[in-house]
Amino acid sequence: MAHPVSPLAPKSYPELPVIAGMRFATAEAGIKYKNRTDVLLMAFDEGTTVAGVVTKSKCSSAAVDWCKANLPGGIARGLVVNSGNANAFTGARGQQSVEQTADYAAKALGCQTHEIFLASTGVIGEPLAAEKFAGVLDEAATRLGDTPWIDPAKAIMTTDTFPKLNGAIVELDGVEVKINGIAKGSGMIAPDMATMLSFVVTDMPIAAPVLQALLSQHVQTSFNAITVDSDTSTSDTLLAFATGKAAVEPITSLDDPRAEIFGLALRDVLFDLAIQVVRDGEGATKQVSIHVEGAVSDASAFRIAKSIADSPLVKTAIAGEDANWGRVVMAVGKAGEPADRDKLAIRFGDLLVAKDGERAVVYDEAATSAYMKGEDLELTVSLGLGDGRATVYTCDLTHGYITINGDYRS
Amino acid sequence: MAHPVSPLAPKSYPELPVIAGMRFATAEAGIKYKNRTDVLLMAFDEGTTVAGVVTKSKCSSAAVDWCKANLPGGIARGLVVNSGNANAFTGARGQQSVEQTADYAAKALGCQTHEIFLASTGVIGEPLAAEKFAGVLDEAATRLGDTPWIDPAKAIMTTDTFPKLNGAIVELDGVEVKINGIAKGSGMIAPDMATMLSFVVTDMPIAAPVLQALLSQHVQTSFNAITVDSDTSTSDTLLAFATGKAAVEPITSLDDPRAEIFGLALRDVLFDLAIQVVRDGEGATKQVSIHVEGAVSDASAFRIAKSIADSPLVKTAIAGEDANWGRVVMAVGKAGEPADRDKLAIRFGDLLVAKDGERAVVYDEAATSAYMKGEDLELTVSLGLGDGRATVYTCDLTHGYITINGDYRS
Repeated sequence: MAHPVSPLAPKSYPELPVIAGMRFATAEAGIKYKNRTDVLLMAFDEGTTVAGVVTKSKCSSAAVDWCKANLPGGIARGLVVNSGNANAFTGARGQQSVEQTADYAAKALGCQTHEIFLASTGVIGEPLAAEKFAGVLDEAATRLGDTPWIDPAKAIMTTDTFPKLNGAIVELDGVEVKINGIAKGSGMIAPDMATMLSFVVTDMPIAAPVLQALLSQHVQTSFNAITVDSDTSTSDTLLAFATGKAAVEPITSLDDPRAEIFGLALRDVLFDLAIQVVRDGEGATKQVSIHVEGAVSDASAFRIAKSIADSPLVKTAIAGEDANWGRVVMAVGKAGEPADRDKLAIRFGDLLVAKDGERAVVYDEAATSAYMKGEDLELTVSLGLGDGRATVYTCDLTHGYITINGDYRS
Repeated sequence: MAHPVSPLAPKSYPELPVIAGMRFATAEAGIKYKNRTDVLLMAFDEGTTVAGVVTKSKCSSAAVDWCKANLPGGIARGLVVNSGNANAFTGARGQQSVEQTADYAAKALGCQTHEIFLASTGVIGEPLAAEKFAGVLDEAATRLGDTPWIDPAKAIMTTDTFPKLNGAIVELDGVEVKINGIAKGSGMIAPDMATMLSFVVTDMPIAAPVLQALLSQHVQTSFNAITVDSDTSTSDTLLAFATGKAAVEPITSLDDPRAEIFGLALRDVLFDLAIQVVRDGEGATKQVSIHVEGAVSDASAFRIAKSIADSPLVKTAIAGEDANWGRVVMAVGKAGEPADRDKLAIRFGDLLVAKDGERAVVYDEAATSAYMKGEDLELTVSLGLGDGRATVYTCDLTHGYITINGDYRS
């Protein structure tokens, strides 16, 4: 938290609307940080459905395991999130801590423990004593409110330099349905099913399996399409809660034409939050969209785009404002996907720098260098092999990343 | 070259012996650098066999393509290497440049063009005019000598901060057979079949297919087991030349018991050179050996070790002398290989830090922190699943890497 605010931080934060059927409070449990909130408690009315995607890590955290076990139930009454300790790789004690925390929360909110969802973020490997939450959750439950949404966004931050929140309002059957979301994440960001932590709440009445299907679909082009440092967290969790209080008929099937409309609004929120995570990437000074087109398939395009976005040499060149497309060629070559060097074309923004396997005749060093000084960069690789395309969003790799991660744990 | 010499550089350089049947010269062609050699010419007597492994990159350089085409012939009379320009992603012009260079070299040495092997290293995407080599190779051919071996090691350097050379002498049938090798590489190091550039010469009479088999075998635990930054070069090339001048019976089959003895000596040279590349990793201040044991297979162990060695978060923690084993857990988890969190154990050196999926009872923060201040670190992950094991060698990730790569091209 001592690190300077990202130069890519938003100029202002949205004031998200109240969502009927849910309330929240934040608190200071003193888990690691001092003089800031580090616990978020959300309470959902009866009838709230839930869907989620979590990390594919083989070393997932105790809280992730807890969510995995309870997601099939599809119902939620509470959410407890803490920052400062990931409760990951904490063995049987971690599991007990999670059960105890859910028990405290269930008592505070008057529901069943399996209706409580949990997420923890912070240091890996330090035991997290559930006792920290005991009085804190009881007290927080007496203060539940429905605004402002920046408070929950702040309570879940770790190395984040700004809180991340976004919302959408979609009109269905003449009723304004709301979707609010928050996220955190700055390093260890190469989500594989979800980001570090993100929570989305809507008042839409929607069956859990439909919500799950929409979430799983749209996470692919939002959180799963970003990378800060290629490192996938043990704690990645994205949960969506639907209180069902909006005065419209429930969506109970993907065949309902409103599912697609609602899904696109959900996607907008997820995408905006994911981009905010990139823009708060540890040490980031530039946001970069890596577009790959003309690949043999979308999956192949994605793997090539990821190879470019994860390359330390590409990312340091961007930090140095160097249009070093030779390193882009290297990253295409190492991806292990079909590529024909002599058909490759590369653009920075609209500027063609390479074509047919060599530097473009129209290459303009001065114009390209000027483009690289911008804060939002677009890099497009055309493979000329097929119709596959994908975009991955990343940031540059700077001294800031080294500084932040050379002394994070201490 | 303006960057400070790696703190991990050797204190002195070996004086390698003369290898009968080959001579060399270095020269200044002014390709990119000023006031230093940037061309190496090696000349081999008739009867020299050759074997090689090159990058698997889909965007391999023109010189790599040339070597691939000529390796099946198994015979070599000359080698031309230049630094300062990789002649990669230079299209048809790159190919013509390579043919022209081989032609110059063949005329200078009095042999066939397909007996000339080529390698280029440096910037990607800049055309390399073969004319640069014309007079230079003719002149160099008049100065061919057989010592000192540090000269060829110096001529092939790019961002390297020290020359890399090593040799072995193995007694076969009472005769001392010699193996000399040089290598270069500092960044863009995650070889996939070979390193950036390495050349090994022996006076052993050995058939090309046998030499190839031994080279392919031993590259796996040497150059293919190192990573500096996870970026695989377009130009990775490892070539081994055997002049056959040692007064012993030729090895013509892998069944010859001497093949194994010779292979192990070859392996020692390859391994030492590979470790030197790690120790000259861009910005490196520590060398780290990542051992993985108890995996379901050797291949699985290797992928997990590589995941740890390539993790920017693990590498920055090591730079910060932080025994952050939580990040090691993260890297195990993201590798996508079988792992059981609750059976994992992790050691830094001999110090047990984690066991049975949580922090070890005997964990000693002070002792572990003291260990991390060392220059050569050993990190061992025990998975407890099977007998698979592998080791990957890497370095830390520091501000030096960012500085070097934020302004390399300019």
